[in-house]
Amino acid sequence: MWYKTNVSSKLNILYPIIQAGMAGGPTTPEMIAAVSEGGGLGTLGAGYMAPEQIRTAIRTIKEQTSKPFAVNLFIPENTDWSVEEVQSYKEEGISLTNSFRNVLQLPEPEINTFQQSFEKQLAVIVEEGVPVFSFTFGIPNPRIIKHIKDKGIVTIGTATTVQEGIELENAGIDMVVAQGSEAGGHRGTFLNNDRQFPEQSYVGTMALVPQMVDQLNVPVVASGGIMDGRGVAASLALGASGVQLGTAFLTCRESGAHPVHKEQILSSTEESTVLTKAFSGKAARGIQNIFMTHMQDKSAAIPPYPIQNAVTKDIRKKSGEQHNSEYMSLWAGQGTRLNKSVTVAELLNSIIDQTESIISQ
Amino acid sequence: MWYKTNVSSKLNILYPIIQAGMAGGPTTPEMIAAVSEGGGLGTLGAGYMAPEQIRTAIRTIKEQTSKPFAVNLFIPENTDWSVEEVQSYKEEGISLTNSFRNVLQLPEPEINTFQQSFEKQLAVIVEEGVPVFSFTFGIPNPRIIKHIKDKGIVTIGTATTVQEGIELENAGIDMVVAQGSEAGGHRGTFLNNDRQFPEQSYVGTMALVPQMVDQLNVPVVASGGIMDGRGVAASLALGASGVQLGTAFLTCRESGAHPVHKEQILSSTEESTVLTKAFSGKAARGIQNIFMTHMQDKSAAIPPYPIQNAVTKDIRKKSGEQHNSEYMSLWAGQGTRLNKSVTVAELLNSIIDQTESIISQ
Repeated sequence: MWYKTNVSSKLNILYPIIQAGMAGGPTTPEMIAAVSEGGGLGTLGAGYMAPEQIRTAIRTIKEQTSKPFAVNLFIPENTDWSVEEVQSYKEEGISLTNSFRNVLQLPEPEINTFQQSFEKQLAVIVEEGVPVFSFTFGIPNPRIIKHIKDKGIVTIGTATTVQEGIELENAGIDMVVAQGSEAGGHRGTFLNNDRQFPEQSYVGTMALVPQMVDQLNVPVVASGGIMDGRGVAASLALGASGVQLGTAFLTCRESGAHPVHKEQILSSTEESTVLTKAFSGKAARGIQNIFMTHMQDKSAAIPPYPIQNAVTKDIRKKSGEQHNSEYMSLWAGQGTRLNKSVTVAELLNSIIDQTESIISQ
Repeated sequence: MWYKTNVSSKLNILYPIIQAGMAGGPTTPEMIAAVSEGGGLGTLGAGYMAPEQIRTAIRTIKEQTSKPFAVNLFIPENTDWSVEEVQSYKEEGISLTNSFRNVLQLPEPEINTFQQSFEKQLAVIVEEGVPVFSFTFGIPNPRIIKHIKDKGIVTIGTATTVQEGIELENAGIDMVVAQGSEAGGHRGTFLNNDRQFPEQSYVGTMALVPQMVDQLNVPVVASGGIMDGRGVAASLALGASGVQLGTAFLTCRESGAHPVHKEQILSSTEESTVLTKAFSGKAARGIQNIFMTHMQDKSAAIPPYPIQNAVTKDIRKKSGEQHNSEYMSLWAGQGTRLNKSVTVAELLNSIIDQTESIISQ
């Protein structure tokens, strides 16, 4: 049975297929429940959500499924910015992006908060008894990891290099998502993030997975460019014990992605996406649009994450309201020719059938 | 039988495993013959070789094997530079790289030729009755394709995007290598090569292969990050009919790669390589060294391929003579933790055994 792996048994699910915790709206309770009901692991992408929003979402999910699901959070950066530095970053970011506000007829924004409290978000996960906690952008501190594990919560970290995987394993994390360069959305990179050649952490899935598997004892979950049963069978052949798919779920009926975002994915190709820091200050893969193109030359001046993310919020929101794809973040991976407009159940069934038919050949 | 595919039958070989035609010395007649004797397809990387050197190499290969093998050439760019433009490119390139000549105590070079005659190279392949012709950087013109096919020579093109694959198929090419972003050495990209975001053709193997397979009728050969039987089994699961491995063969005993190049690969990780135009004017993946780091800021001023390649020849040669890894091109893919110092026969046998054990599970 190809689907009986360390990942499916540790997560107590039937198929080792994880729906990625995409932050910013796509992961509706309906989508998450449908993935978990279908035998996979649904994930709430809660990185940008306030603690009480997370609590409400968790309770809505639980009304729709009794199966395991995960909540995904962002590990906060170790920043030691002074109040003055934060203010200066905000002003630089706003001035850098004001030309887009002119186009969209937006006033200069007031930016009061730029990041949720990770500890308060996590407290809700523990209080609500969520069975799986996944995360990206770093490693929680040892006290927090001990606290979560004492509660019996399974932990999943994100690594873009073998060394990041080793550090997650050494910290006691239960399994590691190997995020290949094909993946859409934010890179999980947290070591050497300031290197001269950032592409040194853009390692393709085909190369990353077997090298990670060889160096780690915990199960490895392949991600990046996996869209169908061919990708699942390939990942298992590479030694992964499971897969994580994000972009494939974005165009599902139950997905909360903006309709314009869905349309853009469905009409894109493997050449449509690029890596950009323009929207958030952190590298992420999305479909190229005017905002990304115009910010390309100014990339050195972009304030760091999460300040730039707060700075561009009004622009992204207004672009969405206008159904204008040119100023929104259109996160997507490199496999978008394989995206389909289907239900989560249809997608999961087709992935499982195709995997089975390839493996039983 | 997993190894009976359209690729192995069209090429008349036992296993659909192609050794990439790496130019510049690694593909010795001994390596090529050992690959073909082992049931794969050895390939002479002849892009930089003079026609009579190619003839000598072909004859040496034939003394060592009666099995099929390939010769790989570079399709010339459609450049219409005037004599003055060429002169000015040469001067710019030399002045851009003179600081390295100072370090290596080299005089300014005389550059007389910067590219072999493709038609004369190809004539040798036809005259010597080589059964397979593979190529990169473009598509031969229709007259040439007709001539080669009339002689019964099987043709293999290189594509880094689905659209490039479609154009190769439409031109009548027999099979297409899908070159994923993990691949070492030069990118085969020939469409939209001047785009603002060059990474739009850096598509990872996991994403590229199934999308290419869906759009093409000719067999697709996966390449990029494939290092062992796990990579072969994964590629077949993705729908490829064969694989091409370059970096895995570079550290074989029979490989003609510089000993320093081999050592650098064997001590590198998936984070060691970057894409650079510094050595040749065309994007290629290699292990980062001082030459690449110092040229990073000057990349806009680098003359186009193949002029920059001719410009840096003396520097690469002297660096090799000094066994100094810092000024040589250390082409390698992203899977180098899996490189081994073994014979070609040992590598092939281990790949075949591992593929078989994964597929028969």
